[in-house]
Amino acid sequence: MNPVSFFPENIKKALGKPAPGAWMPTIPPACIRLSSGYPEPSLIPVGPLQQATEQLLVEEKDLPLHYIGSPRTERLYTFIQERMAQRGMTASRHELLITAGASQALDLIARILLDEEALVVMEAPTYMEAIEIFRNYTDQLLSVPIDGEGLQTEVLEALLQKRSREGKPLPQLLYLIPTFQNPTGTSMSTKRRHHVLQLALTYNFLILEDDAYGELAFGARPTSLKAMDTENRVLYVGSLSKVIAPGLRIGWMAGDAAFIKAAAWFKKDLEHPYSQALIMTLLENVSYEAHLKKLQNRYEQKCRVLQTALQEAFGEQASWYVPGGGYFLWLHVPGIDAQAKLADALKAGVSYIPGEHFFLRQEEGKEYVRLSFSMEDEAAIVTGVQRLKSVLLD
Amino acid sequence: MNPVSFFPENIKKALGKPAPGAWMPTIPPACIRLSSGYPEPSLIPVGPLQQATEQLLVEEKDLPLHYIGSPRTERLYTFIQERMAQRGMTASRHELLITAGASQALDLIARILLDEEALVVMEAPTYMEAIEIFRNYTDQLLSVPIDGEGLQTEVLEALLQKRSREGKPLPQLLYLIPTFQNPTGTSMSTKRRHHVLQLALTYNFLILEDDAYGELAFGARPTSLKAMDTENRVLYVGSLSKVIAPGLRIGWMAGDAAFIKAAAWFKKDLEHPYSQALIMTLLENVSYEAHLKKLQNRYEQKCRVLQTALQEAFGEQASWYVPGGGYFLWLHVPGIDAQAKLADALKAGVSYIPGEHFFLRQEEGKEYVRLSFSMEDEAAIVTGVQRLKSVLLD
Repeated sequence: MNPVSFFPENIKKALGKPAPGAWMPTIPPACIRLSSGYPEPSLIPVGPLQQATEQLLVEEKDLPLHYIGSPRTERLYTFIQERMAQRGMTASRHELLITAGASQALDLIARILLDEEALVVMEAPTYMEAIEIFRNYTDQLLSVPIDGEGLQTEVLEALLQKRSREGKPLPQLLYLIPTFQNPTGTSMSTKRRHHVLQLALTYNFLILEDDAYGELAFGARPTSLKAMDTENRVLYVGSLSKVIAPGLRIGWMAGDAAFIKAAAWFKKDLEHPYSQALIMTLLENVSYEAHLKKLQNRYEQKCRVLQTALQEAFGEQASWYVPGGGYFLWLHVPGIDAQAKLADALKAGVSYIPGEHFFLRQEEGKEYVRLSFSMEDEAAIVTGVQRLKSVLLD
Repeated sequence: MNPVSFFPENIKKALGKPAPGAWMPTIPPACIRLSSGYPEPSLIPVGPLQQATEQLLVEEKDLPLHYIGSPRTERLYTFIQERMAQRGMTASRHELLITAGASQALDLIARILLDEEALVVMEAPTYMEAIEIFRNYTDQLLSVPIDGEGLQTEVLEALLQKRSREGKPLPQLLYLIPTFQNPTGTSMSTKRRHHVLQLALTYNFLILEDDAYGELAFGARPTSLKAMDTENRVLYVGSLSKVIAPGLRIGWMAGDAAFIKAAAWFKKDLEHPYSQALIMTLLENVSYEAHLKKLQNRYEQKCRVLQTALQEAFGEQASWYVPGGGYFLWLHVPGIDAQAKLADALKAGVSYIPGEHFFLRQEEGKEYVRLSFSMEDEAAIVTGVQRLKSVLLD
């Protein structure tokens, strides 16, 4: 039997591409992990989850353990609606869908909107996994560079003008992480947010706003595209992974009811009733605002420590955008080949993600490194940077 | 903005079909639920899950709450491999993939094997949700009738012969629930199992063996197709939903490494690290065999009570296959229109699933009703049957 003979063409094509994450060597246990976009272990509410479990199972017994049944699933919808409202976003019950993490939301949106002809525009650089998800549906991907003020909307506009002049297909979808972006930590300016919303109307495309890091603001939080969107052009994706715990896989999408209905159709019961009930119980017991403040302070402090260490170690030999929130710092070291240096870095005891994996055209990322300040503590971050210097400036 | 204009053709087509489950009226709370394929509440190990949570979070702290990290995920793979081995099935680590319930496994298998031209053959009747899942990928669905000995493989063979004679496309996939089938409760005879495996070789198709109920044997358990398959033609799908708790969404697929690799590609991190670690902790603390025995005895007893009640209520006016295990009994009441009677049944205080929803050609199911004996206790089952009689024989 030849297994490949059973695959449709698009699957053969997908499997012909390098496997997701195959480039990443195993990280030695002793390694300081500046690669991992994981929350700080001490910030995961283990104790409260313990108590929430006890309360949930005493109060509801077997209910949350069936396919459906826990009243807390609906309460979680309400909680998300209220939290969005506090940030100026409105979503009716029919405009909201809880998903198994933000990544299920991205996959569902790609599934309902993209066929092999569909054109998707992304930021350069952008979230690695999003590139992989979209590539599962279409090869028509274009990127537009970002800078310290996020997506360069003038470049996008020029691209759209050129394509429509030349009668080329226009994008179906623009994928953005406008706030505390992964990997750069930058946010789109208000001016550019207005501009991109206007472009969506003029050129008739949808915007997928990935707001996975939006809650983790060190200072002022930019207004989300969803909150500024008067025409229902924005499909908003949120997540509790970075705020509570990734392992519970709770995210959501909000947008036009027609898209939510379609996404729900394909999601069916691929969701997590128990996780939903458990996280809702937790949210009833803790002050979300207080928990968030704690996260924001911790990550802001560690981000500051990372930048001081980088300044001391690299001086003029490296540069980066000052993150306004989130988990990541985007380090530019002119002249390096970050991927080529990775093996040495792991030997030296520090891990990072080479910049090339965040680009459609990998060569654009050669001199860049994504550093995460979320998981490791201050001491480890400082040591990690010293090891990083010894390797990257070697 | 016209949302529909953003959908590719196949999505428009899917959304043109009646929404999954739209036919089912809301079930009044007081209703005796002979419709629900849910475990009996008292059989869900709520206390042990409580203890398992405490142990897991004390032992591993935040580990199981990240995207990856808990060593128990790998132990769960080992547990599943050992359990399969006890039932004569071998699956190496590369031939096994844990999924978010059996339904994610079905969706992934459909995704990697089916395009719009692919032909799928199913049992008539078969699992409703499987029909919906496959219809999301192809309209080329055919069904072959089953009887008390499962799929009528002679009918299948005749169909295959005819199609190859006429030069028509042959099936890519045969979807079977060979053991304690949903909805009929019947199992394929050994002779037919051998026959269908031979047909898969002769006509070069794959078999998707859905074994969601295979553990719940009242007496002898038939050998799975996977255990009899020497040519790696069988993609096996298992689940802990019916054995531990559906809400934890733990299932798996086992088969040729090439298919597992492809499924893993599209699954990415759409899985539940916390659920996996939690259920593994539970499995370390309880005797799986003892728990299973308890389930088997309970469901066998309730199945007997249901049949006695049906015998008394319907006498010669109804018939059914005697279930060898599982959750369901398939009631045939000549002359009725089960869907038309549903509203009255709900008014009378009993729910069921009209047979037509288990068929590609719904009219075939008009006189049938799927009764579940899994959720309600004996007294409720008896009362439910009396109400059922008053409605169906009215």
